[in-house]
Amino acid sequence: MNIDQYMTDLGHRARSASRAMARASTAAKNAALEAVADAIVRERDALKEANARDLARARDKGHDAAFIDRLTLSDKALSTMVEGLRQVAKLADPIGEISGLRYRPSGIQVGQMRVPLGVIGIIYESRPNVTIDAAALCLKSGNATILRGGSEAIECNTALAKLIGEGLASAGLPQDAVQVVETPDRAAVGKLVTMTEYVDVIVPRGGKGLIARLMEEARVPMIKHLDGICHVYVDDRVDMSKALAICDNAKTHRYGTCNTMETLLVARGIAAEALPALARAFQAKEVELRVDAAARAVLEAAQVSGLVDATGEDWRTEYLAPVLAIKVVENVDEAIGHINEYSSHHTDAIVTEDHDRAMRFLREVDSASVMVNASTRFADGFEFGLGAEIGISNDKLHARGPVGLDGLTSLKYVVLGHGEVRQ
Amino acid sequence: MNIDQYMTDLGHRARSASRAMARASTAAKNAALEAVADAIVRERDALKEANARDLARARDKGHDAAFIDRLTLSDKALSTMVEGLRQVAKLADPIGEISGLRYRPSGIQVGQMRVPLGVIGIIYESRPNVTIDAAALCLKSGNATILRGGSEAIECNTALAKLIGEGLASAGLPQDAVQVVETPDRAAVGKLVTMTEYVDVIVPRGGKGLIARLMEEARVPMIKHLDGICHVYVDDRVDMSKALAICDNAKTHRYGTCNTMETLLVARGIAAEALPALARAFQAKEVELRVDAAARAVLEAAQVSGLVDATGEDWRTEYLAPVLAIKVVENVDEAIGHINEYSSHHTDAIVTEDHDRAMRFLREVDSASVMVNASTRFADGFEFGLGAEIGISNDKLHARGPVGLDGLTSLKYVVLGHGEVRQ
Repeated sequence: MNIDQYMTDLGHRARSASRAMARASTAAKNAALEAVADAIVRERDALKEANARDLARARDKGHDAAFIDRLTLSDKALSTMVEGLRQVAKLADPIGEISGLRYRPSGIQVGQMRVPLGVIGIIYESRPNVTIDAAALCLKSGNATILRGGSEAIECNTALAKLIGEGLASAGLPQDAVQVVETPDRAAVGKLVTMTEYVDVIVPRGGKGLIARLMEEARVPMIKHLDGICHVYVDDRVDMSKALAICDNAKTHRYGTCNTMETLLVARGIAAEALPALARAFQAKEVELRVDAAARAVLEAAQVSGLVDATGEDWRTEYLAPVLAIKVVENVDEAIGHINEYSSHHTDAIVTEDHDRAMRFLREVDSASVMVNASTRFADGFEFGLGAEIGISNDKLHARGPVGLDGLTSLKYVVLGHGEVRQ
Repeated sequence: MNIDQYMTDLGHRARSASRAMARASTAAKNAALEAVADAIVRERDALKEANARDLARARDKGHDAAFIDRLTLSDKALSTMVEGLRQVAKLADPIGEISGLRYRPSGIQVGQMRVPLGVIGIIYESRPNVTIDAAALCLKSGNATILRGGSEAIECNTALAKLIGEGLASAGLPQDAVQVVETPDRAAVGKLVTMTEYVDVIVPRGGKGLIARLMEEARVPMIKHLDGICHVYVDDRVDMSKALAICDNAKTHRYGTCNTMETLLVARGIAAEALPALARAFQAKEVELRVDAAARAVLEAAQVSGLVDATGEDWRTEYLAPVLAIKVVENVDEAIGHINEYSSHHTDAIVTEDHDRAMRFLREVDSASVMVNASTRFADGFEFGLGAEIGISNDKLHARGPVGLDGLTSLKYVVLGHGEVRQ
């Protein structure tokens, strides 16, 4: 197969389908989503058979249990997909909304209309649920999609794509609106992220390795985040019960998520009071503590042992594990400075009772989500009320933070005139 | 000079200054803008002397009259700069605005805060007015700026930069918030558009050649448009007086601007009535008409002569000159199809009295500005009410269409909690 030609054809068909999707009615898009949900219920056994073949191949290749788990289309996974499709069908359609339409002195009215981005490429690992989640959000937002999942999931992805195509067709929408790249060749990804004439944005879903590699190659803009080095700063004007609850939740609720706290900053004025209690709570859950010299001094004075000395590298590390870096800072200024230097600009929080410091932290910390007195774990499309989430962006242009349907759209200017000309 | 090191230093200082600019008060930013305006009034003679040295060198190099004109700091140009600075000082400060703050079922409040992008690189030709215009908008929006103007304007740009630095310092803001690249070496541009760690966005201001070259090299995202192939579609349900006025204005008000009409589409049903009148109006102003076969047939039947046959190339050409391509189309569907195929997605307009067609055109034409019954010449930051304009973007991500202060900002999520944790 000529990969270049194959991908160009896919891109050309996607661009063409994107025109029809941009003008598709809300009713047609919702009908397609419901039809896909119905089809997954109906074809549950066939999907599980396709998945069984993927799983057999993955086991032969020696993939580990976590990999197999993500690849498995269990009954629960299938039900979650069906539920997700029906939820996206219920979300308000963002397309066509006109905002800010105002008369100008020239007599024209100027406003902005929300429109689809066009063609969205999704690159992800062997997680078949992403096929449905991503397709649903792109479909609802009037975009065409090219899906490139991990090659180990190729059989169930192809089966799912067939159901999506039938769902689109049953609603009078073009089947090419959702296409799956059916070759495992890595060159297909290289082409997908560089064909700027056919693809408007790439959303990579996966680990840091995948995203770093794509950043090297891509010419198409990406909605992405590389890592989540999230901070909680415990100020000295603090309600200790809030600080304990928030720090515990931010670190131990889930270790492997991008909005998990990786570095704890504590104000010097409260360190002797706060650090021992915090450290004991973490150690009770077997979290390894990597501390700076000031934190070690405070903790040893309080008979807390089993500490590891932090190195410069720890301030830049996303552990995704029961490990926490701890540093004592002078005050909110030093905390903001440390965060703006070392944070991955994902999510950072302050715990304080002081209004001015809370407001300064909110304004000055340069991250996608900045929080006062709340756990970093809230940085999530559902928790933020977006209804769904295609991913999280740490970038400043276009979408920032959790990205929902609106992040898959753009605003164009619309002008309503009555024959006006420019003087 | 080691260009790489020089640019890295500039970038490092800009990043550092951007932190201070992000927290700068509205009063301080406005005071700096007013101080620069006052300084330009005071230093008028010194600025003109620096400019005279630039002009002498440019004449020696044999630059043409248009070039010399753009390079000249006339009294009028200086007054326009001063006025521009004072106008930007009067604009509302976009930074810190919080929108959409709502309670979520978890108890947290979630909203979005408008914040600066960070560091903005401006690359432009030898037009000293851009130095002031761009610096003023970046300063007001809380960004740090690195300015890289054409090397022929180096003396007056350096003199202007000195006044800007003094204005910043007088308001207690960091002088590094506006820096001018003081080497004419082209390698400085190559470095500027690739140092993603120090520069958040590049705004190129200049001709298609400059922008196409930068698109090849850049790794930093750009706010830019490459060209303006703008269309007017005259529908068959049309008020002829509006059609004549709008087409005349869209083409002949200014020939060299990016929002000038380059292709006229006319519905077959009105061609015999509309085309001869339109053609005579254009020919009276010596506009060359490049027509398809159907338009030629209609025009020759009406005794209009002096026509040129359009080739495929004409539908893709931005003339920036008294030349107009004309094509007869079947209906609004064919017009939308032609525009989505050939437009540069800058600005396109329909002239029609039919509501459904107007609404379909508005929704389905995939351009940054889409207009009903108004001249394409209105696509402009001031006409749209943005108060100022750093440029126009044809891209879909981030800002689209005329870009004002808001386009130099980003939205981050802010969360206000009371000790909430995620369940």
